[in-house]
Amino acid sequence: MKVFLVGEASEHADDLRPHLHDPWEIVELPWSAADSALFDDRIDADDVVVSLRFTRETVAPPFRLLHVPGAGLDRVDFAALSPETMVANVFEHEVPIAEFVLARLLEWEIRAAALQESFGPEAWPSLYRRRVPHGELYGKTLVLIGYGRIGRAIAVRAKAFGVEVVAVDDYAETDAAAHVRPTTDLADLQRRADYVVVACPLTASTAGLVDAAALARMPAHAVLVNVSRAPIVDGHALYEALRDNAIGGAILDVWYRYPGVDDQELAPADDPLWELPNAWCTPHSSAWTTQLPRRRYAVIADNLNRLVAGEELGNLVRPDRVDSSRRSPS
Amino acid sequence: MKVFLVGEASEHADDLRPHLHDPWEIVELPWSAADSALFDDRIDADDVVVSLRFTRETVAPPFRLLHVPGAGLDRVDFAALSPETMVANVFEHEVPIAEFVLARLLEWEIRAAALQESFGPEAWPSLYRRRVPHGELYGKTLVLIGYGRIGRAIAVRAKAFGVEVVAVDDYAETDAAAHVRPTTDLADLQRRADYVVVACPLTASTAGLVDAAALARMPAHAVLVNVSRAPIVDGHALYEALRDNAIGGAILDVWYRYPGVDDQELAPADDPLWELPNAWCTPHSSAWTTQLPRRRYAVIADNLNRLVAGEELGNLVRPDRVDSSRRSPS
Repeated sequence: MKVFLVGEASEHADDLRPHLHDPWEIVELPWSAADSALFDDRIDADDVVVSLRFTRETVAPPFRLLHVPGAGLDRVDFAALSPETMVANVFEHEVPIAEFVLARLLEWEIRAAALQESFGPEAWPSLYRRRVPHGELYGKTLVLIGYGRIGRAIAVRAKAFGVEVVAVDDYAETDAAAHVRPTTDLADLQRRADYVVVACPLTASTAGLVDAAALARMPAHAVLVNVSRAPIVDGHALYEALRDNAIGGAILDVWYRYPGVDDQELAPADDPLWELPNAWCTPHSSAWTTQLPRRRYAVIADNLNRLVAGEELGNLVRPDRVDSSRRSPS
Repeated sequence: MKVFLVGEASEHADDLRPHLHDPWEIVELPWSAADSALFDDRIDADDVVVSLRFTRETVAPPFRLLHVPGAGLDRVDFAALSPETMVANVFEHEVPIAEFVLARLLEWEIRAAALQESFGPEAWPSLYRRRVPHGELYGKTLVLIGYGRIGRAIAVRAKAFGVEVVAVDDYAETDAAAHVRPTTDLADLQRRADYVVVACPLTASTAGLVDAAALARMPAHAVLVNVSRAPIVDGHALYEALRDNAIGGAILDVWYRYPGVDDQELAPADDPLWELPNAWCTPHSSAWTTQLPRRRYAVIADNLNRLVAGEELGNLVRPDRVDSSRRSPS
């Protein structure tokens, strides 16, 4: 009974081991074990493969479970898996993403970094006497596009700040943290939004959902936040709206172009959004925490424990429900 | 029936007026109306004075209510007030102070400003390939010193992030947001704190409460936050602890010296805390929001409406319960 940690996963044996109840043999393999049949003869029907990717030219021999150590399934070729092989993924990234969104919205209102920058004996009297009031989250309206795990994690936290949270989602239901409305209500809701947060997957129906017309419906002070996938927002329309101060600002952590292994320089979008003072741009960092892989490998270990105990696994993926247009760079 | 807005309060007639149900005459007066008897003959027994300060060399003639448009009562000389004059204050600052604390703690973990600073086409490939993981609030332990309005506002928000909140307070009780323990437990609690937040008033028993020994009990990664009054923390001991990396850092918004009207330059503390990279220093800004005076004058108007309707007033102050050692620079 072996668990193969492939590619990036091979760095996480120590995150997995302490949570395992049974004597699994942990084997570290290179990426080629995910992308070719090179190591297939070492993988038995009882074994588990942990890998962010899985592709083959022909169908792989059956093994017990492919556990993706992330949420995205776009790099798994389900046709390359034997029908007996189960597939599971892990989430947990909703926690750091929600923290990132709240951190940036709070700083958008407070601007504490600038206060800190100028503080000292020379500035103290004038800073104190002429304190410039800042903003608050309290009482604001946040519109979530998408009310899945990430949307809910944002909503719970925003609500604790006295923010009114309204989400558009055609499948989710209203709960204690947010009112959920159909996607067709988005246009109306945008008009009274202080913050619009994109938290839906990229699909054929969400690509370009936030276009020039949608941006034009936002109040002039409103802030657009994208922590999902860049192409849900029309990048050029966003650039123009920000440049012309038609909206208050944008908090962008996801991009239109991702670097390949050899890229030394790469514009993340066609328009230089990062040069605008009202666009706060970061390098797809929101979920990238020290704690995230630890939590994720604890979840994977729990599934391995369940496998041995004959219990139902968590986060099982049904290939027929996977939208192949989803892109998950992280 | 007149309401006198004195000094700084005279800037807020427009915040008060829309909330009044009755035909009050609003009169704006200079600070001298608070500090001298100069305007006392204009103030009748039915009238209300709104002022952050109130002093007299002799007792003022009776009027209905002194409404302080802030929380601090240290600039009110109760001996100068007729016994018939009621006194009320307002809070509401717990909302922006709690937002400030969460904003700074989130940024302490995430460091999004630095990511934003370096982002662009030249840095994008290397930033993405060598993303440095940041921290999370989730699962951390926050110890509150004091569980009054500010402490509770912090606790509710921190709890929504999955933070364990423990407060020391000899009068408050455990609630859904925080476990409350007696102040004598502080030493034990500090040892497992990730964040220690000073949120108690400055009194004879809290001055210097966080001294060198208390700082030495904090873990090396822990962060001290002071949004209350500087002298609760021994400034020199804090400087040494930060300089020697004996604690992880400090988030300081309150100071040991406040500028007088003529000060052009003033060191906010004996030791140059603001020069340390692990001390995040701001100029007593946490509560200073655009929304705060609007909310406060709405509360004052509500009290004026209650006065006319013969209802019980909110936030009435009992002079015998005011600790004269409290300092409230804001």
